[in-house]
Amino acid sequence: MYLDIGNVLETSPGITEETLERLDERVEIAHERIAAGMEAEEHGYAALSLPETVDTEEIRAAVEPFGTPEAVLTVGIGGSALGAATISAALSDQTDVEAHFLDNVDPEDTAALLESLPLEETVVNVVSRSGTTAETLANFLVVRQAMEDAGVDWTEQAFVTTGEEGNLRNLADKHDLPSLKVPDGVPGRFSALSTVGLACGALQGLDIESVVAGAASEKAKLSGSLQNSPGYAYGAVCYSLAERGALTNAMMPYAESLEYFAEWFAQLWAESLGKEGLGQTPARALGATDQHSQLQLYRAGPRDKLVTLVRPREREDIDIPETDLEGLSYLGGAGLGELLDAEFEATEASLAVEGIPNIRIELDRIDAHGIGELLYGMEAATVMYGELAGVSTFTQPAVEWGKKAARGLLGGGEFAEADAVADKLEFTIE
Amino acid sequence: MYLDIGNVLETSPGITEETLERLDERVEIAHERIAAGMEAEEHGYAALSLPETVDTEEIRAAVEPFGTPEAVLTVGIGGSALGAATISAALSDQTDVEAHFLDNVDPEDTAALLESLPLEETVVNVVSRSGTTAETLANFLVVRQAMEDAGVDWTEQAFVTTGEEGNLRNLADKHDLPSLKVPDGVPGRFSALSTVGLACGALQGLDIESVVAGAASEKAKLSGSLQNSPGYAYGAVCYSLAERGALTNAMMPYAESLEYFAEWFAQLWAESLGKEGLGQTPARALGATDQHSQLQLYRAGPRDKLVTLVRPREREDIDIPETDLEGLSYLGGAGLGELLDAEFEATEASLAVEGIPNIRIELDRIDAHGIGELLYGMEAATVMYGELAGVSTFTQPAVEWGKKAARGLLGGGEFAEADAVADKLEFTIE
Repeated sequence: MYLDIGNVLETSPGITEETLERLDERVEIAHERIAAGMEAEEHGYAALSLPETVDTEEIRAAVEPFGTPEAVLTVGIGGSALGAATISAALSDQTDVEAHFLDNVDPEDTAALLESLPLEETVVNVVSRSGTTAETLANFLVVRQAMEDAGVDWTEQAFVTTGEEGNLRNLADKHDLPSLKVPDGVPGRFSALSTVGLACGALQGLDIESVVAGAASEKAKLSGSLQNSPGYAYGAVCYSLAERGALTNAMMPYAESLEYFAEWFAQLWAESLGKEGLGQTPARALGATDQHSQLQLYRAGPRDKLVTLVRPREREDIDIPETDLEGLSYLGGAGLGELLDAEFEATEASLAVEGIPNIRIELDRIDAHGIGELLYGMEAATVMYGELAGVSTFTQPAVEWGKKAARGLLGGGEFAEADAVADKLEFTIE
Repeated sequence: MYLDIGNVLETSPGITEETLERLDERVEIAHERIAAGMEAEEHGYAALSLPETVDTEEIRAAVEPFGTPEAVLTVGIGGSALGAATISAALSDQTDVEAHFLDNVDPEDTAALLESLPLEETVVNVVSRSGTTAETLANFLVVRQAMEDAGVDWTEQAFVTTGEEGNLRNLADKHDLPSLKVPDGVPGRFSALSTVGLACGALQGLDIESVVAGAASEKAKLSGSLQNSPGYAYGAVCYSLAERGALTNAMMPYAESLEYFAEWFAQLWAESLGKEGLGQTPARALGATDQHSQLQLYRAGPRDKLVTLVRPREREDIDIPETDLEGLSYLGGAGLGELLDAEFEATEASLAVEGIPNIRIELDRIDAHGIGELLYGMEAATVMYGELAGVSTFTQPAVEWGKKAARGLLGGGEFAEADAVADKLEFTIE
């Protein structure tokens, strides 16, 4: 992973090389804290050790009974789905096994998905650490029923990733389902490089070993200076820019296969850093498409933004046929990828000349190694940002209220939160 | 379309009922300006007259030669694709004709799409007002070549929506392709309810007449008071909240089929209002999924946000099977949709109790009429916001720089912008 922060040095908000030097002193201290946390396997910090602690052989062995299915359906929500989805999407050109994700409780969408899936050839990968996540368990119950209705023995096609106890563990024990354990100390949004994020790829026959190797290569760069680690540097620079008013971070990959990555990043960034009035709002964007959508705002709107542009340095290209269309002859002989790269550089420069801070992240290629680098680099960035901001990176206290309220509304117990829902102020315009 | 702004009245940022009264005086003046613009068919304002001026019979007649294809491939970018994609996604349960969109120049994605499409049964719907949009024409050239390579006569399966002159118009004339005209005075991002947004739906056999009827019902509510028009009220309230610091608007539908709507809205909002240092950044989110991703930030992060929650009042549900899973018996007998609605209300309340402003938008159902209401309502909202903010709602001057730079980089002429790209400051960390 390559990071280029040249375009935050003469922008507004922006930082100077002097800022970077001062920041580097704080990065050194933060790194010591992070390294100690990794060493002691502290909650959250343990995620940064995954390139060493994850056991890909164990994952391979666990999914081995399924052979090569036609499709994998992962049932999970939030961090239980996004890491796997990111890896599957980035590497979709490497496999014929389709990956689907049931990560919402939308009846229309669920019905359409269940109708389209070859249920008898689909492995269901259920992921929930606690085994009580309402959305995931509800979806699993629906999927299981659909399989039964289709005459499919779900116990032959279900795979479970969960904690040491709870509903899903009991279910796995009872029906002798292949299973993996969610590692301790790894919050869901940091679990892409663990059993949680890799089992789906293993079921698809993807090169999960190279994903882990890519992550390990980025881990090897962690040190007490941001000059050595793209991940730390990204986190530290984003933190500095946010302090100077860049409260939005538009994550804009120039590759359709990284669209899920932007979504994964949005969870990682928002849920880890959005605390105590701090945090930077991730805005998902996609190049070149969103040049025709968001670029006007980024260049001419409020100066509260950082734009992060991501691309591979190499990709398979498709030639644009020669043409005599008026004014378009220049396209003939170029490739679609060349056009995309020209737009990447043009957008980057168009932001810079307006003084809008932007950062370039590049991978050699979007392959298993590259996605491993990117995932690990962004996790290291998040932890570094959290240290510098002094927030509790690995918790998410603000989501509990709503969970209790929803449960209460459905008759799952007495919760004051559910009563508060009834007190809603109404002011309706029809 | 129903709007409920109760949850912006006791929040921070927030407004009071007195603010609304003062705002209403400005809405009256703005409405007069808008109505005059509509009457005179002024650029941009003309879009709000589309429910009356669009000719669905003409659209039906233009696509009639294609009968019922297996798939429709729309080649366009930005406003030339998003409106059609929004309608197709919302109504995907109403048709067996697949809709695909080539709205980026990603070679990997394009190759995968062309490989998966039944080319001999696919209608290609090329959309570009000017007929010179680089991405769209490059993609069209690639698609045409792929059809020729597959032995398919592309001239029998191409459909064009473009202006009165230019490359695509010439091509349509030369090969006698069925075509439609992009209406005058309607910017791309406001063209969902025109030939641009409706031809794809017509090719899919969708009820585009009801889409227009839904829009017309919302148009009928436009008047000199925000109390009568959900669209105007949404625009006016968002404007007021942005002035008070809500610089981000998280658009969060609770329906997978409205995910494209959030993307369409993001273009409409950002490109229309992101000007002269003003504008509200649209953040796309999806309920319930993003409760496990963005809600922590929305509740506990910087108080610069408004959250807009969208849902249908009715939807087909799927029963969650009864279960003896520990602690989950309350789910049995409920529906997935009930769970989703409980989460909607819980999230709304969880924001309100923290004082985070949020707005509820509801439709009776996500059907053709409903999506028409929603699209028109949001367009009216955008125009109202633009009037109140005093910006040039219908232009996008900040995107020209990058277009010239990209063209120059590809050898399409001499542009100073392309030279500026070479001056990039570099500061690389590997």
